[in-house]
Amino acid sequence: MADYKAPRDDMDFVLHDVLNVAEDWQQAEQLADMMDIDTASAILDEAAKVSENLIAPQARQADEAGVSFNNGVVTTPPNYKENFRKLAEGGWVGVTANPDFGGMGLPKSLSAQYEEMLSSADIAFSLYPGLTSGAIMAIDLHGTEAMKNLYLPKMAAGEWTGTMCLTEPHAGTDLGIIKSKAVSNGDGSYAVTGTKIFITGGEHDLADNIVHLVLAKLPDAPPGTKGISMFLVPKIVPDENAGLGQPNALSCGSVEHKMGIHGSATCVMNFDGATGWLVGEPHRGLAAMFTMMNYERLGVGIQGLGAAERSYQTALTYAKERIQGRGAKASQQQNAEADSILVHGDVRRMLLTMKALTEGGRAFSSWVGQQLDRAKYTDDKQQRQRADAMVALLTPVAKAFLTDTGLESTVHGQQVLGGHGYVREWGQEQLVRDVRIAQIYEGTNGIQALDLLGRKVVGSGGDLLQPFSDEIESFIESLSGNKSWRKELTQLKDAVKSLNGVSKELVEKAAADENLVSSVAVEYLHLIGYIAFGYLWLRMAVVAQEKQAQKPYLAAKVKTAKFYFSRVLPRTHSLLAVIKDGSESLYLHDPEQF
Amino acid sequence: MADYKAPRDDMDFVLHDVLNVAEDWQQAEQLADMMDIDTASAILDEAAKVSENLIAPQARQADEAGVSFNNGVVTTPPNYKENFRKLAEGGWVGVTANPDFGGMGLPKSLSAQYEEMLSSADIAFSLYPGLTSGAIMAIDLHGTEAMKNLYLPKMAAGEWTGTMCLTEPHAGTDLGIIKSKAVSNGDGSYAVTGTKIFITGGEHDLADNIVHLVLAKLPDAPPGTKGISMFLVPKIVPDENAGLGQPNALSCGSVEHKMGIHGSATCVMNFDGATGWLVGEPHRGLAAMFTMMNYERLGVGIQGLGAAERSYQTALTYAKERIQGRGAKASQQQNAEADSILVHGDVRRMLLTMKALTEGGRAFSSWVGQQLDRAKYTDDKQQRQRADAMVALLTPVAKAFLTDTGLESTVHGQQVLGGHGYVREWGQEQLVRDVRIAQIYEGTNGIQALDLLGRKVVGSGGDLLQPFSDEIESFIESLSGNKSWRKELTQLKDAVKSLNGVSKELVEKAAADENLVSSVAVEYLHLIGYIAFGYLWLRMAVVAQEKQAQKPYLAAKVKTAKFYFSRVLPRTHSLLAVIKDGSESLYLHDPEQF
Repeated sequence: MADYKAPRDDMDFVLHDVLNVAEDWQQAEQLADMMDIDTASAILDEAAKVSENLIAPQARQADEAGVSFNNGVVTTPPNYKENFRKLAEGGWVGVTANPDFGGMGLPKSLSAQYEEMLSSADIAFSLYPGLTSGAIMAIDLHGTEAMKNLYLPKMAAGEWTGTMCLTEPHAGTDLGIIKSKAVSNGDGSYAVTGTKIFITGGEHDLADNIVHLVLAKLPDAPPGTKGISMFLVPKIVPDENAGLGQPNALSCGSVEHKMGIHGSATCVMNFDGATGWLVGEPHRGLAAMFTMMNYERLGVGIQGLGAAERSYQTALTYAKERIQGRGAKASQQQNAEADSILVHGDVRRMLLTMKALTEGGRAFSSWVGQQLDRAKYTDDKQQRQRADAMVALLTPVAKAFLTDTGLESTVHGQQVLGGHGYVREWGQEQLVRDVRIAQIYEGTNGIQALDLLGRKVVGSGGDLLQPFSDEIESFIESLSGNKSWRKELTQLKDAVKSLNGVSKELVEKAAADENLVSSVAVEYLHLIGYIAFGYLWLRMAVVAQEKQAQKPYLAAKVKTAKFYFSRVLPRTHSLLAVIKDGSESLYLHDPEQF
Repeated sequence: MADYKAPRDDMDFVLHDVLNVAEDWQQAEQLADMMDIDTASAILDEAAKVSENLIAPQARQADEAGVSFNNGVVTTPPNYKENFRKLAEGGWVGVTANPDFGGMGLPKSLSAQYEEMLSSADIAFSLYPGLTSGAIMAIDLHGTEAMKNLYLPKMAAGEWTGTMCLTEPHAGTDLGIIKSKAVSNGDGSYAVTGTKIFITGGEHDLADNIVHLVLAKLPDAPPGTKGISMFLVPKIVPDENAGLGQPNALSCGSVEHKMGIHGSATCVMNFDGATGWLVGEPHRGLAAMFTMMNYERLGVGIQGLGAAERSYQTALTYAKERIQGRGAKASQQQNAEADSILVHGDVRRMLLTMKALTEGGRAFSSWVGQQLDRAKYTDDKQQRQRADAMVALLTPVAKAFLTDTGLESTVHGQQVLGGHGYVREWGQEQLVRDVRIAQIYEGTNGIQALDLLGRKVVGSGGDLLQPFSDEIESFIESLSGNKSWRKELTQLKDAVKSLNGVSKELVEKAAADENLVSSVAVEYLHLIGYIAFGYLWLRMAVVAQEKQAQKPYLAAKVKTAKFYFSRVLPRTHSLLAVIKDGSESLYLHDPEQF
């Protein structure tokens, strides 16, 4: 595995030169005093150091060691415990947590960069603080004041960690049919009973206590998803001063053996009448869980981005060093026996595809982060509505598209190394194995696509698409006199026009064809993903062209934008053809004909 | 892992109803007496039993156990030794070997089916007999009579196995720069010295002896690929009666730790003046190695197909059993809490994509096998030339396209299972890990694409493409009155026309643009792959439509053909756009701008 180097220049370029996030921060009351460009840079520099020096070097070893399970006790890989402690001490577990409870309170546009670095360094390790952040947000949004005061300071400090306990053996995507039960103990607490599977960080040796957020049904629960409640169930029940009391009636039954993220403890958790407390309203647990879902889903998308960046760095290092075959005459090293493989078109194709998807992905994740921040911080009602709409539309795209392209990139990054990509030594195969889970958990990418096309686009009669296509069309309009990017502007304009047309058609036809949405949703999500990347590539290209005299590294940005439009955006042609074809060809087969 | 069931019906349909291979057999002197439909069926039934009952059930355990290395000694997973012995006793190691030396002498169209079954059962295990078959063929084609008499009976019987030793630490794709040396011992033998890496089956405990075919350079060798010779270097030097004599001066230095195919021993082999014998002409070793390459490359392609078939079977089993969410009203099970996930459009999309690629892949690999058989067995000069041209064109497509679609299919097959696809238990993640190597070894898929577009299409001025496009155009012409498939016939006709057009353009422009071929070769290979599958899907569909009254299972075939044209063939639109864009966007970046 080549050393990881955080792409700090590119992050600053995206945040400040392209998205101008500092202006948003200045307009947000909660951020204006605490955040500016210099502070942000100092924070990201520090995050880069932690990721590069502390976490990244341990990832290969952690993959080999994995977690071990012995009679209910889970041991994480060597260095995880010490590194988690250092991470916590640096305040990095509470990076997005409410400052009232000791968190750093970073805006998402900024914490997205930190999350990317941590994902590049070691996705498996990143899940322990990541899940804790999610649990903190859920408790902060829906817990009682007493609950927040008791739990959040410990969690934001990384002394205790958090989990989300949703999935059961028979119920994953379909949470409406879960069987876990909660019965009142008569003292304000509940006895929670049930088996949960695939629980990330359900048990481990990194922290003194683990705070489980468990979905379960109350005795009077209505059937389906509207009868699910959320309970806080600590591994060890704390006293009122957050001192550790009695172990709760819960245990880890086993850990899963998985394709990747070997350092992450994926647990079967048994709750045997464990003491828990209701978080939020009865029967409203799923809604409560989903209030933080937009943040979580962007975070999982960023795992795809982080893995792709790491794979790119290693592939590039290898490609520059590996001497093999001859390039075109102009590029030959006259005195060498062979050229660096960087001269070969196919190697360049793989590397540039990775580069275009990764830098495009960084711009996209930061842009979605900016929308989340606007939705959270702005006082302007109209701006908030617009940001809410963008978040609703783009979150499923961020989760699914960044992880689908993350898999593609890591597979390219492995292929660049040939046989050396298949053996473990260089770490390229680990990135493929690690990133693969991100397409599955936190709602499979198929589910994200259904959410996008079904709930969001068709569900709003197409209204939720409007701010997105309007923004791109205004941008194209604003560059109507631009000659350097005329071809690309036309390409993007045509793509948005096709998107609007096909969306209108889908909205119209979906009522009469119940199978339509689920038949074309994945292709539709990819279509929006490629268009969003195209939009952001043009935004980056225009700025880079202006500023490349001062910042010479931006010359590459202009070239990669050209590559994106030449080689990647044309994927929309096939997607459009498939979407227009509708559902018919998917519903010809009877079940026994598969 | 669900039980594996060999798709015998589909194999018979492809071989006999669609390709009519028995007619070819009857016209081939060497096959007419030994092979007919009944004999072929009996052989494949037996191969199915071996694959289903003996090999497939061990694959998960073998993945967990892996190979172990201790002081030069390599131990394969439990059951491998016993199963290899049973395989050998059944004659399955010598399945394609020359009957003069005890082989079964099966035509490739038939052995392709056996190879698919063995790959579905356990790719890692299949490599030991697979590499042995390749070595047998090389010795049979290029060895002396004495060499053949001494080695081939033992190898065809599976008592000894074979390897191919090509790659060195600094030389993989570019074999011209290998450093291994061979010096004459003055007695007709040579002393071979060098280090070879990534040697499949270089050392193991399955057989009494291992016959290495080693590429090395003689002292007077010209530089580059024209100075490579091939040597037979046995692990133990046999006496003239094939009794085991002295151990040779060679050893296994270590085994690689890999992403997958854990049961396959991938060895570093050190040759320290080991005694070897020249196979074929001096300096012509690479050419000799390549005479069997068409068979080997189709075989690797078939690994992709085999993994895809296995993944499909497991995904389908899971999808039918898994109850989750609700389908459209018409498909709801009224009294159940939820429906089988087979009702959901996105699950159907993944399964049908796998089905279309896998059944299309089987037709394709069998068709390429038929071309190989025609090239080998026919006495008709014109038919042989045509078959040679088809083999030259289609072999790189078979290797790369079947493995690229193999990865895609196994990733879909994993996704259908959600989290259960990511844990090891169901075996779906293993298939992804195992199949991934097939895109890399035996010439990476990028190299296959260069071979196709550079050496074959552009190298022949487009002539090698002609028999392929002619055959498809004649087929379309022959169905000009057909109404059921009018839409699909038009689609295919347009695709072939585009292929011919873009090929002509590439031939014209390649001379002036040295980077053109390597910049668009992969997309070009995929374009041909999708068109070839489209052609074969239509051939299958027309036959299936005729015969579905007698064979009701063929009704599904007609439906899957519709799906292929609706959802898969449209991928050619984007490929064409990218190919037409040429090389420019790949060569904008200076090396330091990556």
